[in-house]
Amino acid sequence: MSASPLTPFSVDTTDRDAVTHTVQIALGDRSYDICIGAGAIYDSASWQQLPKAQTALIVTNTTVGPLYADALKQAISETYTHVHVLSLPDGEAYKDWQHLQLIFDLLLGNQADRKTVLFALGGGVIGDMTGFAAACYMRGVPFIQVPTTLLSQVDSSVGGKTAVNHPAGKNMIGAFYQPERVICDLAVLSTLPPREVSAGLAEVIKYGPIADLSFLAWLDEHMAALRAGDTALLAHAVKRSCEIKAWVVSQDERESGIRAILNFGHTFGHAIEAGLGFGTWLHGEAVGCGMVMAAHLSHRLGLVDLPFVERLTAIIERAGLPTKGPILSDDSGLSSAELYLSHMRVDKKAQAGAIRFVLINDNGSAQVGVADDALVCEVIEACCAI
Amino acid sequence: MSASPLTPFSVDTTDRDAVTHTVQIALGDRSYDICIGAGAIYDSASWQQLPKAQTALIVTNTTVGPLYADALKQAISETYTHVHVLSLPDGEAYKDWQHLQLIFDLLLGNQADRKTVLFALGGGVIGDMTGFAAACYMRGVPFIQVPTTLLSQVDSSVGGKTAVNHPAGKNMIGAFYQPERVICDLAVLSTLPPREVSAGLAEVIKYGPIADLSFLAWLDEHMAALRAGDTALLAHAVKRSCEIKAWVVSQDERESGIRAILNFGHTFGHAIEAGLGFGTWLHGEAVGCGMVMAAHLSHRLGLVDLPFVERLTAIIERAGLPTKGPILSDDSGLSSAELYLSHMRVDKKAQAGAIRFVLINDNGSAQVGVADDALVCEVIEACCAI
Repeated sequence: MSASPLTPFSVDTTDRDAVTHTVQIALGDRSYDICIGAGAIYDSASWQQLPKAQTALIVTNTTVGPLYADALKQAISETYTHVHVLSLPDGEAYKDWQHLQLIFDLLLGNQADRKTVLFALGGGVIGDMTGFAAACYMRGVPFIQVPTTLLSQVDSSVGGKTAVNHPAGKNMIGAFYQPERVICDLAVLSTLPPREVSAGLAEVIKYGPIADLSFLAWLDEHMAALRAGDTALLAHAVKRSCEIKAWVVSQDERESGIRAILNFGHTFGHAIEAGLGFGTWLHGEAVGCGMVMAAHLSHRLGLVDLPFVERLTAIIERAGLPTKGPILSDDSGLSSAELYLSHMRVDKKAQAGAIRFVLINDNGSAQVGVADDALVCEVIEACCAI
Repeated sequence: MSASPLTPFSVDTTDRDAVTHTVQIALGDRSYDICIGAGAIYDSASWQQLPKAQTALIVTNTTVGPLYADALKQAISETYTHVHVLSLPDGEAYKDWQHLQLIFDLLLGNQADRKTVLFALGGGVIGDMTGFAAACYMRGVPFIQVPTTLLSQVDSSVGGKTAVNHPAGKNMIGAFYQPERVICDLAVLSTLPPREVSAGLAEVIKYGPIADLSFLAWLDEHMAALRAGDTALLAHAVKRSCEIKAWVVSQDERESGIRAILNFGHTFGHAIEAGLGFGTWLHGEAVGCGMVMAAHLSHRLGLVDLPFVERLTAIIERAGLPTKGPILSDDSGLSSAELYLSHMRVDKKAQAGAIRFVLINDNGSAQVGVADDALVCEVIEACCAI
């Protein structure tokens, strides 16, 4: 599959207040649309031409379900005779096989056939679990994503990564499986806690240094309004993030090459999450801080100059994200930096024990590379709070 | 993907004793070869140009492992620095998430990365579980099948169906995932119990009525020698079975249409397995008897004449398979035929509660159709032992 070039970023004056956009994800016979709009869940246009079936299942969580599950159920009841709702406990701690099994139990308990359509109504955890359930139930049924956090709208809505966690590691068991459609309702972001908005902005910011410096400049300019929840600005940010991710994924659907650049900040971030225990920092917070570390490593390797690293750090800080890493400790006797390294080595991006870092250049592009442990330790020590 | 026509069946006099064949499975970038040969596990030619990695894992069971795991381990140790062996308990009862988890635990406990290659050494259960583990581990690693039963050589080696069972149904959780290569060693069939040979022959016979009447005639002629383990004849039977299955699968990889004809005998067979408890009858035994029932249903619907049904029944009987169904009972108060129907309705091939049967014609082809419950009950009652 050959990729079209990434279109230049632009917010022209005529569509400055536009809040309805469609991003087409071109993946051959697995292509689908991302529909972005304020109030999209309540807009009947979002629910036209759904896959035909007798039965649908909305998977949600105990935080999001009470807010939007009834609206979604009503919207799709015209298409499906039976609409079930399964509300899982909220949080990464429940992204495991035991809770995935609850989805299968409900489907089989209701004799749901292989045409059944699954709807993921929630953040990344619900999207990943529902997508993986759809990938595996009877070897694959259709699913539709309704991401309700900024993070999941700009990240998991493109790319088809689905998974559950294993006690030994995050997202270790999963599948590449594309949704039929993604509905991003910007209005739901108004009920997000500010900390979650910041966490989502980490993944938005990420797209700048790896692919689009003009988008990074636009984010820099509008950061305060984005954090305040300006719907039109958020619509542009979500649209551009999805466009960039789609452009990368269309070149490398199964992450054998360039797609890895989307993990900018994630290798260090993974160590922070694993080292503190998953859930202590939000994923986006760890990625924000991880980007600062990865930028410093890129600088030490001569790929990017220090003012760029400092500018990126300032943007991350203004997004409300931590820019200093935590000191890790356990009873192993290893130093904090050594613990970072040990967590990074069992990351699924590692190959043959070698940690692979996403490194940025100062022209708005990125590459995957390795670095000496000693240098990595220096960067970690320099970037951690004391 | 357009399919080439099925080549005519032929065993010419010059290759009558040939025991080495290759069947190419054409599925675009998921294409692979099935290598068929007596002693193939011990033949270094089988293990050339394997996918490169540091680590390999052989998944086997406690029956097959002691016989062949050392030989396989030695054969692939030239390619992989670390070769682990995991021996699971033998049987359908262990084809569940708990035992699948043991594969993930071993891989993660040994820091196996996303290049790791899985080898399935065993019958259908090991093949299905290992394939599903490969599909899910870090969202997909390569796997190679070494099927050691006749059934798995002619059935699960083509088509990429992988799965585990759920308490509510067989193969309910799985994926379509193609192996890199399949190595069918005919010599290992000499250690198969006769009952398992017969069960394998059920799936071999199946390919006759649905696709190739001349193959059915050849099987009729050579049934005694096949059951006695004639290696050259078995090689032809395995090759032809794989060719026919490949021809069907290449037209419909994800079973949205014609592929369903491969389930001839499986709808009734599923009811027998589920009704008696999985493992009471072997899968092939249930399919053998299920084909008799499906042939009678086809006759009642006017698709095939009675002499053809009787000839097919005689071949199935000469393969050492049951041709009379068991009487089912439980404490529900339902009759045996009603219990058959209730099991068939929760089969994953059912759609919106309607049971879909594979029906044969007398020209060596098949189609999917429905039938009135009353007619199906009559067929079940006529085909069951009293």
